[in-house]
Amino acid sequence: MRTDVGGVVGTAPGLSEAELSAIGTAVEPALQRILAGTEAAAPGYHALNLPEAVDLSAIAAVADAVGDVRHVVTVGIGGSALGAQLLTDSLSPARDHRVLDSVDPLRIVPMLESIALEETLFHVVSQSGETPETLANLAVVRDVCAAAGVAWEEQTVITTGSTGRLATIAAEHDVPQLPPVDGVPGRFSVLSPTCLLAPAVWGVDLQELCAGAAAAVPTRPNDVTAGVILGAVSHRLAARGASVIVMMPYADHLARIADWFAQLWAESLGKGGSGQTPVKARGVTDQHSQLQLYRDGPADKLICQVGVAALERATAGMVTDSGHPTLDGHHLGAIAAAERLATRAALARSSVPVIEFALEELSATELGQLIMHLQVGCMIHGELAGVSTFDQPAVEWGKTATFELLETVTDQPTAPSSHPARRWVEE
Amino acid sequence: MRTDVGGVVGTAPGLSEAELSAIGTAVEPALQRILAGTEAAAPGYHALNLPEAVDLSAIAAVADAVGDVRHVVTVGIGGSALGAQLLTDSLSPARDHRVLDSVDPLRIVPMLESIALEETLFHVVSQSGETPETLANLAVVRDVCAAAGVAWEEQTVITTGSTGRLATIAAEHDVPQLPPVDGVPGRFSVLSPTCLLAPAVWGVDLQELCAGAAAAVPTRPNDVTAGVILGAVSHRLAARGASVIVMMPYADHLARIADWFAQLWAESLGKGGSGQTPVKARGVTDQHSQLQLYRDGPADKLICQVGVAALERATAGMVTDSGHPTLDGHHLGAIAAAERLATRAALARSSVPVIEFALEELSATELGQLIMHLQVGCMIHGELAGVSTFDQPAVEWGKTATFELLETVTDQPTAPSSHPARRWVEE
Repeated sequence: MRTDVGGVVGTAPGLSEAELSAIGTAVEPALQRILAGTEAAAPGYHALNLPEAVDLSAIAAVADAVGDVRHVVTVGIGGSALGAQLLTDSLSPARDHRVLDSVDPLRIVPMLESIALEETLFHVVSQSGETPETLANLAVVRDVCAAAGVAWEEQTVITTGSTGRLATIAAEHDVPQLPPVDGVPGRFSVLSPTCLLAPAVWGVDLQELCAGAAAAVPTRPNDVTAGVILGAVSHRLAARGASVIVMMPYADHLARIADWFAQLWAESLGKGGSGQTPVKARGVTDQHSQLQLYRDGPADKLICQVGVAALERATAGMVTDSGHPTLDGHHLGAIAAAERLATRAALARSSVPVIEFALEELSATELGQLIMHLQVGCMIHGELAGVSTFDQPAVEWGKTATFELLETVTDQPTAPSSHPARRWVEE
Repeated sequence: MRTDVGGVVGTAPGLSEAELSAIGTAVEPALQRILAGTEAAAPGYHALNLPEAVDLSAIAAVADAVGDVRHVVTVGIGGSALGAQLLTDSLSPARDHRVLDSVDPLRIVPMLESIALEETLFHVVSQSGETPETLANLAVVRDVCAAAGVAWEEQTVITTGSTGRLATIAAEHDVPQLPPVDGVPGRFSVLSPTCLLAPAVWGVDLQELCAGAAAAVPTRPNDVTAGVILGAVSHRLAARGASVIVMMPYADHLARIADWFAQLWAESLGKGGSGQTPVKARGVTDQHSQLQLYRDGPADKLICQVGVAALERATAGMVTDSGHPTLDGHHLGAIAAAERLATRAALARSSVPVIEFALEELSATELGQLIMHLQVGCMIHGELAGVSTFDQPAVEWGKTATFELLETVTDQPTAPSSHPARRWVEE
């Protein structure tokens, strides 16, 4: 893959040519800290070691033992779901991978009751072992399996730390385990067992994925990779008013990169009153939904386009007799390419900064590269902003409040005492 | 349904109690203009007449003629897809409704080749009749049908204006038509034939949907409905720094309200350098992805929570033996309720403004109400901001550039001349 950063020059907010050329030097101290953290396998930074450190043979062994299934259901939320979903949606889109990443009984229970449980792998993932949604959903999975006469233990693999409630359940019921890598928060765990079992079961080439990611890890403080530039540019533009960063893949199977990126960026950088708001978009679709705002709204956005050349050159979907002579004789992919390029030019005309990630194809190798560039970009941005990239303290209060609510009620919870006064408008 | 606006008092940005109480008076002139426009059936404003003006019997007749199908495929993009998808996802989630809302050959062609075409209804929708993606996709649909020996004309209904390329195709091939309502832009067309055929085929009660929506239309200049308050509050908070508006439904089947709302808000209000950026979120899921940013990031957000009481009271999904005694004995829905309330309190603790839309159940009636409140809110916000709520001029340049690119190339398009200089980072 290649990355085009020319689209941030002279925009508003934007950089000058000279600033863009100097950005590698400016970022060296930040990159040095990241490299030191990586070498020490320090918490968080250790994510950059994963492509080489992760034990793929252990994952392959578990996937082999799972054997032939019809469905994979990941029971996990946040970083325990988004990475796995990104990989399977992108690289094995024809295979059935579902995710229990909410606690909505009206979706979850009918869904579980509609699939062949005895031909399903449940991958239950909570790095802490304490995630309430995941513990609750596993309880429901066990119930539904019991009602169907299916031994859930035989259909399940658990990924959790050595302590915690989920570890206790795994031990009690003798459920196979595939341990996570310590020191890597969920949103940086895509290249670890936390996220790799579902893709492994569906035949994704994890070696290539990790090789691609490894190639994108910077190795020296002057190694100005695409990820390093992304981090430096996004940080500089944020300081100049780009409070929003839009992730806009032009490939339907890659749509989940926006969801995964949104967690990576928001939880890592949303701290101490700063942090770009990630926005999920889809090309060409959102040209008909968001482009008006991007071009003529506030100058507070940085757009990340992701293109896939193989899709744009694909010979499936030839257009003939469309009623529009300009479209006739083109494949859908060529139309997609023209729209992506025209949109980029339209954004440039409105002085909106764009970074373009250009993949040759949506392969494991290139997706690994892209994922790593985005992770490195996030770490660089975090270093430059001076935030603790790898924690998420503001999430804790709500978790505690949830448990307090559930402890004090027997049926339906009501608002906690610090809830603001309600002002109802009826109807 | 009910709407709680108490959560914007004393927040940052926020309103005082007195300001909130006075907001109905402040907004009267704007509402008066909207009511006048509605009465005159003026372009755009006419959307508020739809619940009473739309000819549901014509839609029902077409749906009846379609009869029994296995799949409904909407061929449409933007406002021609999002509303229909919202309605079927919410109200007939067990039925198969797919959407061709991109031009990705690697998704679209395999998908068309995998379904039973002779048991599929294609609803081809372009109000202008000129949408290139829709014309191209229809050409591909026709090709795939021809290859399978299926007469596409017998499986298709077209919704388009009386002129335009799609109208010509419909006439040439004698395809049944279900005309759109003039004077209503796509993003306000959810309660019109543009979006109602798929729900009608899947048995959604359109009468109830429209009755719910009708009940939410303000009728007098001092009719301070939830929608009017939404528009006034969001406009006031935007002026005070809330450049982002988050739509966060706590019901998986209602997830699409965020996509539909994102187009409504962005295309209507993103003009002349202003306009809130809509962000799509999902409760409880995004508590594990975005809440850190919402609580501890910049004070630039207004959060819209949507709760559904019937889901939170549902008796499906009882949690037992979860390994966590606090969870045991609760249904999934009660956990969802506790999380929603705790998140709202957590946001309040961080002074983040929240508006809560509280539905009793995800019924056609209440969804109709919610949709109308959001449309009214958008119109009010647009009036107060002094923008042309119903046009989208900034989208046009990219469309023209797309055609120019396709006209000048025979195979793969390259960047148009106004494209910014590229600065590639390899690998």
